[in-house]
Amino acid sequence: MFLPFFGRKPRLTEAQRGRLQALEGSDSAELAAELLRGPTALLQLTLPEARQVVSYMLPMRIPEGNTFIRQGDRQSTDFMVLVLEGEVTVDTIVVSRTQPMVVNVLGKGSLIGEMGLLDGEPRAASCTASSPLTCAILTRRALEELLIDDPQTTAKLMLAVSIRIAQRMRDTSDKLKRYAQLTQTMQHEINRLLPS
Amino acid sequence: MFLPFFGRKPRLTEAQRGRLQALEGSDSAELAAELLRGPTALLQLTLPEARQVVSYMLPMRIPEGNTFIRQGDRQSTDFMVLVLEGEVTVDTIVVSRTQPMVVNVLGKGSLIGEMGLLDGEPRAASCTASSPLTCAILTRRALEELLIDDPQTTAKLMLAVSIRIAQRMRDTSDKLKRYAQLTQTMQHEINRLLPS
Repeated sequence: MFLPFFGRKPRLTEAQRGRLQALEGSDSAELAAELLRGPTALLQLTLPEARQVVSYMLPMRIPEGNTFIRQGDRQSTDFMVLVLEGEVTVDTIVVSRTQPMVVNVLGKGSLIGEMGLLDGEPRAASCTASSPLTCAILTRRALEELLIDDPQTTAKLMLAVSIRIAQRMRDTSDKLKRYAQLTQTMQHEINRLLPS
Repeated sequence: MFLPFFGRKPRLTEAQRGRLQALEGSDSAELAAELLRGPTALLQLTLPEARQVVSYMLPMRIPEGNTFIRQGDRQSTDFMVLVLEGEVTVDTIVVSRTQPMVVNVLGKGSLIGEMGLLDGEPRAASCTASSPLTCAILTRRALEELLIDDPQTTAKLMLAVSIRIAQRMRDTSDKLKRYAQLTQTMQHEINRLLPS
């Protein structure tokens, strides 16, 4: 059952009503809507808006071991993945190494590949299902449709997505500060050990 | 002179027409609109849409030496700044240091403080005008008004903002990879130098 839409919702088209009806009774669609809303309080997606977004997403299962995003890929940059169940290993190959370095393990509620969806740049890391995955995919095409059909929900979705990127950006900046500090300490150590 | 609005533009309210009229003949408003559009091609803001955003922004001059964003500030997190003219020094205080470390110098076209605007988290770095600045400010309040008045433009603005954050995120990730590599090399050097 869907709650009625409040406020300034544009009238739904036949196609949109169809999309939403297709979700009815789907537990994973409901889970996707809840996960999409995320933890932020500013201008948050309402649950009906989140359901609206989900109606533009494709449900997908990815088997364990499948690498569904590859570092450096310039072709498949037009989708993002919302993880509903399962775990994803994110790894990256640093120039000096031959073995990839695991940089993150992501679970339920994580958004993956949203930077590529937005800017179309080559993928920055590889993502592999480390357990069987259930997820929902939003393609750039679907995002463009959503933008035309329901701009207010798209605005709030974009806001939610940028908040997630911003939070990752804050984490990465913190790591960078710690590395800057660490290399400074190591440099002192090297200077101390060097024969004078 | 403003170009007519094309496509699915909602009808402008009296207040919106007033906002746009107030910009007419302003070179800095025109510059702000052009800078806001940025370099990205995907779902880009049109020039009329960018002008629409600018009509919700406040023009501001900041004197040289003024620190208008302070690292750790939890109160003034509800605005972002588009630099129209001048230069901004971004610095951050790392735990081990007493002197701030300059992390970036930003000029014309840079967007500053957009992460705070979006997530309301404490400011991650300090920003100081290193020359007299002309800029345009968007407050969260104005963003909320824009979202109600023109959701499609807001959606495209949010997209443009998230693309900028994503690009900074890519740069920061690259730096992090280089640091990871550097500390590894330094660790080898320390091991080599340590008396066995």
